[in-house]
Amino acid sequence: MDQKVIFDTLWVLFTAMLVFFMNMGFAMVESGFTRMKNAVNILSKNFIVFAISSLAFWFLGWGLMFGDGNGFMGTEGLFGIGGADNSPATGDAYQGVYSSIGWATVPLLAKFFFQLVFAGTAATIVSGVIAERIKYISFIVFSFFLVLLIYPITGHWIWGGGWLAGLGFWDFAGSTVVHSVGGWAGLAGVIVLGPRIGKFVSGKVYPIPGHSMPLATIGAFVLWLGWFGFNPGSTMAADPESISRIAITTNSAAAAGILSSTILAWIMLGKPDLSMTINGCLAGLVAITAPCAFVSVESSLIIGAIAGALVVPAVLFFDRIKIDDPVGALSVHLVNGIFGTFALGLFAEDRFTPGTTGDGLFFGGGTSLLMSQLIGIAVVGVFVFTAALILWYILKVTLGIRVSAEEEREGLDVGEHGMSAYPEFATLTELKMEVTEKETPDGKRKLAPGTKLALE
Amino acid sequence: MDQKVIFDTLWVLFTAMLVFFMNMGFAMVESGFTRMKNAVNILSKNFIVFAISSLAFWFLGWGLMFGDGNGFMGTEGLFGIGGADNSPATGDAYQGVYSSIGWATVPLLAKFFFQLVFAGTAATIVSGVIAERIKYISFIVFSFFLVLLIYPITGHWIWGGGWLAGLGFWDFAGSTVVHSVGGWAGLAGVIVLGPRIGKFVSGKVYPIPGHSMPLATIGAFVLWLGWFGFNPGSTMAADPESISRIAITTNSAAAAGILSSTILAWIMLGKPDLSMTINGCLAGLVAITAPCAFVSVESSLIIGAIAGALVVPAVLFFDRIKIDDPVGALSVHLVNGIFGTFALGLFAEDRFTPGTTGDGLFFGGGTSLLMSQLIGIAVVGVFVFTAALILWYILKVTLGIRVSAEEEREGLDVGEHGMSAYPEFATLTELKMEVTEKETPDGKRKLAPGTKLALE
Amino acid sequence: MDQKVIFDTLWVLFTAMLVFFMNMGFAMVESGFTRMKNAVNILSKNFIVFAISSLAFWFLGWGLMFGDGNGFMGTEGLFGIGGADNSPATGDAYQGVYSSIGWATVPLLAKFFFQLVFAGTAATIVSGVIAERIKYISFIVFSFFLVLLIYPITGHWIWGGGWLAGLGFWDFAGSTVVHSVGGWAGLAGVIVLGPRIGKFVSGKVYPIPGHSMPLATIGAFVLWLGWFGFNPGSTMAADPESISRIAITTNSAAAAGILSSTILAWIMLGKPDLSMTINGCLAGLVAITAPCAFVSVESSLIIGAIAGALVVPAVLFFDRIKIDDPVGALSVHLVNGIFGTFALGLFAEDRFTPGTTGDGLFFGGGTSLLMSQLIGIAVVGVFVFTAALILWYILKVTLGIRVSAEEEREGLDVGEHGMSAYPEFATLTELKMEVTEKETPDGKRKLAPGTKLALE
Repeated sequence: MDQKVIFDTLWVLFTAMLVFFMNMGFAMVESGFTRMKNAVNILSKNFIVFAISSLAFWFLGWGLMFGDGNGFMGTEGLFGIGGADNSPATGDAYQGVYSSIGWATVPLLAKFFFQLVFAGTAATIVSGVIAERIKYISFIVFSFFLVLLIYPITGHWIWGGGWLAGLGFWDFAGSTVVHSVGGWAGLAGVIVLGPRIGKFVSGKVYPIPGHSMPLATIGAFVLWLGWFGFNPGSTMAADPESISRIAITTNSAAAAGILSSTILAWIMLGKPDLSMTINGCLAGLVAITAPCAFVSVESSLIIGAIAGALVVPAVLFFDRIKIDDPVGALSVHLVNGIFGTFALGLFAEDRFTPGTTGDGLFFGGGTSLLMSQLIGIAVVGVFVFTAALILWYILKVTLGIRVSAEEEREGLDVGEHGMSAYPEFATLTELKMEVTEKETPDGKRKLAPGTKLALE
Repeated sequence: MDQKVIFDTLWVLFTAMLVFFMNMGFAMVESGFTRMKNAVNILSKNFIVFAISSLAFWFLGWGLMFGDGNGFMGTEGLFGIGGADNSPATGDAYQGVYSSIGWATVPLLAKFFFQLVFAGTAATIVSGVIAERIKYISFIVFSFFLVLLIYPITGHWIWGGGWLAGLGFWDFAGSTVVHSVGGWAGLAGVIVLGPRIGKFVSGKVYPIPGHSMPLATIGAFVLWLGWFGFNPGSTMAADPESISRIAITTNSAAAAGILSSTILAWIMLGKPDLSMTINGCLAGLVAITAPCAFVSVESSLIIGAIAGALVVPAVLFFDRIKIDDPVGALSVHLVNGIFGTFALGLFAEDRFTPGTTGDGLFFGGGTSLLMSQLIGIAVVGVFVFTAALILWYILKVTLGIRVSAEEEREGLDVGEHGMSAYPEFATLTELKMEVTEKETPDGKRKLAPGTKLALE
Repeated sequence: MDQKVIFDTLWVLFTAMLVFFMNMGFAMVESGFTRMKNAVNILSKNFIVFAISSLAFWFLGWGLMFGDGNGFMGTEGLFGIGGADNSPATGDAYQGVYSSIGWATVPLLAKFFFQLVFAGTAATIVSGVIAERIKYISFIVFSFFLVLLIYPITGHWIWGGGWLAGLGFWDFAGSTVVHSVGGWAGLAGVIVLGPRIGKFVSGKVYPIPGHSMPLATIGAFVLWLGWFGFNPGSTMAADPESISRIAITTNSAAAAGILSSTILAWIMLGKPDLSMTINGCLAGLVAITAPCAFVSVESSLIIGAIAGALVVPAVLFFDRIKIDDPVGALSVHLVNGIFGTFALGLFAEDRFTPGTTGDGLFFGGGTSLLMSQLIGIAVVGVFVFTAALILWYILKVTLGIRVSAEEEREGLDVGEHGMSAYPEFATLTELKMEVTEKETPDGKRKLAPGTKLALE
């Protein structure tokens, strides 16, 4: 057997597993950044979503995305990865209906595994935006159709040989294909859903702190790790030079994002808030995802630094326009998915992958690449946002998408799942909220010493 | 050097590390699903058990399992992996005493590492079944002898060239060799130990909720990840086609198990209980472990769906017969270890691995494979259950296996380890139990608002 | 392309990612072993430290450590990994300024990634020693200079072709280069900082229990996993025989360390304390890090057992001399970094890596290797301790290094970060301390039943 098949399969499976593990990362960031009364619901959503994605992508998503067809969608080999295929044959030797991914020198099911974990990532991003008020069943149904239809169609445009690829739009590992798509779908959801009770009251914005910073930090480390699969793995080939460089551009953007978001939070908020540090890391990672293979280490530091700096005002901006995104997922995945895709048009250098992107604006390549990037950003945004909005509305008038106000106040864990995340721990939740509203001369939430604990 | 040695060693070490990491998965699922007063004890058991396994399997277990000998056990190269061996030579070139595993093209210590992490898995499964009342020292001693003697003997029958392999019994990655063995050993333990105080009172079954769903979910994700080592790694060779397909059959069974268990719990219990979702995932993974290399993706979906559906009634069944298994380990590992081994006889298809299992019943192969599977299931069950029962009884009359009732009520953390898992958190435990018995008109555990907190 | 480049790059990147993941391990061990009021601060330090290390090592550290120069430090290609380099060419074909690591058959950025995660480990070790009273900004600045200057200089002596390597000093994976360096830097810090308030009062030592054993255990499992990257990865080559053996010597030392520390704690403290078990595991891993490639499995068991046994008295010793190390990092990384480096001189056997260490004292090699090891241990200790002490003093008189007593009592989370790790959980902290001092006839900390909870 051609040994390249073995190398590449080892690399693709290894990195796919890392990306799979990001499901745990998202679960922990989202549950850590939200309240304990909803923790079971959030864990459940994040656990079941990959199962849903696995079915939907196997049943139809893969075929729509990578099947031969037209510029809009695949039309051959649609169901159950059932089309003709002689992978790992490549180039002229490839004879099958998934020719847009025929360049990868690995077995068909390795291609499927790698692409599946990406599809699952898009679905799990949505979860964070709509957390703490969505009905469990509606999230499940939405995720199914997102991975069945919406994600693979825009994916086809870019990675499936569709019309955006033909236009010269580039997105190496998915700032747009995965992260923006998840972000737009979540934005549509939050608009239909509305904010959580208590978030915006009488024109004021009330912060709702997450219940466990250790969980959120576990999640952030796991995501950072997983991105070493997400970006370097997107070569789908064990090319030493590329995968080594992409590992470093990825890490450098994360590091720069951490520092810029921390410094900016320190300046704007007075203290270095850990949730801003974490979101700055993720922002840097999202932003470098599109350009990771096409830019220098120095450029990756700049891209990451800008991404991290975007997070802090973005979080404040969404609060101001009354978009209630409990975990900052829009600031991370949507804003920086867009920024990263745009930055590719600025920072790309032809020398890294000759014959692909060409040079970006800052390296003498003019604005044509940048224009393609802007078009791609816009059309993907319009399509996904519209499609998701329709889907959310259909769910709203059929199953309903929002839990009752009573259930939301009591917590979705009891309401949706009949259980509690921490049944033995004493909590301050309800009491604290009351006392907070009474005694906050300095704006801090603090109980008076000696206060009796009233149980929830 | 033959490059196959390099490929295969990379694959074997990588997947062995993933399986090693499952120790963390088991630790978190078990501690999450049990009470906080026993968390240190459960973490301690799950942490030390791999150290114990490492010693026992090195000292004798490996030799008994893979050493040349008779159909019942290895008799050569027993101690300290000290027999003659010229790995990675294979086939006719192999000259050593571990010829049953001489087919793997990797160094001897790579073979040992991979097999060690499997042995450790069997031992850690036992931990869950007997949680919250076992004496720490007795668990340690039991684990040592399980990995020293019991596990390697039945392992020899199947993977060490013993009599069951000769009979045509197949178990690709260990539904029986690992999971059922752990399950039977745990079942013997729970019979000797008896249920936890408060579980069965006056003929009623009282649920004892786990103290942390985030920990349990962390564990479940880590186990799911680890299974991508467990099953695809069991090729012990970087064969692109096989490892890609096994990764997908493994994932598909997990996905199907998640969905079927969740739906069934929704129907039978009224709400989608997260612990059922998690155990459904693990059930699907356990069940696909034996047949993962021999079945189609479609079959893996069916196997996983049945496995997930088995978990819900199995948990209720063990409750009904007063087998107190705190984490559902018997429903996951024993019931589905058996089911998966049986399902191999139904769903196997010769086309995937020509010349091995042949076709199963559903694919025209008749009942002969199924009969071999049933015989293997039965004899392994009888042997392991009997041997473990004897070992548990010996421990009972020597060291004692159960902590005192007072220690059990107070928690094993203080009693066995002199410490607390969460010394700064206020808990409701003791008070809650009292109040629960007084005020539960609707069967729910809930405190009246304004109740003063009495500290434990 | 030479296929060795592909193999080796896969191995180096995979193991580098495992070592990267150790950042999460350290974060969880440290936060689990300390109090909840400081958890956000500890998570923040452990999260940002790798970002700081990434910048510092890229900017200058790499060049100082591996650049060609003199025996003391690199002087060429200092900044931004910007020197001439034609990796992955090796041997005579290598033409560049990083010739001390020119033997590794991987691209330059793969070398950088692997070495970066090691540098980051040294920095994160410091964090544990000085926890619960260090100012966030000062930790950040210290880490930057540690990785910019101190770590790479001693690293150059040993791994960068410097004078200690010339002397015949061996440290395969960094017992000295990484762990002792982190330990010495931390020791200097704790001497300048002083102990936490309440640790040593009126000549007595008060234990300050960590707030979450599950977090600490998660961390320990992740570190154990990460060490399979740390040690076997340090071959920087996919050599099947070596990496398999190193995986087993590494695991065996961990297992032996777990058992010896647990047994010794059981004997000396009366019960098997989980924190001692965990630190015994880490001690075994630190100690085997230097000799892992040069010793037999049997020797690794002995080295690990001694290391685990050293931890228990070492923790008591540091308490006695009023060195307040909240997580036992000095006992693990400094004491066993020294011991492991020394043990290499005793247990090394020429047969494993002919032409490197030669035989150690116990295998007939005499004392010359042991003398080189002792010299290396001493000079690295003197240099790092002195340099770190100067750096800490400069920070003390400029930024200040210790938070105010009031902030320390209230917790660094609010003081440094303006947030709480667990804002919804009720805690016993303050009250417990008071009550403990009033009612402890039997020396145990316990509240009377019915005590009202006064919130902090």
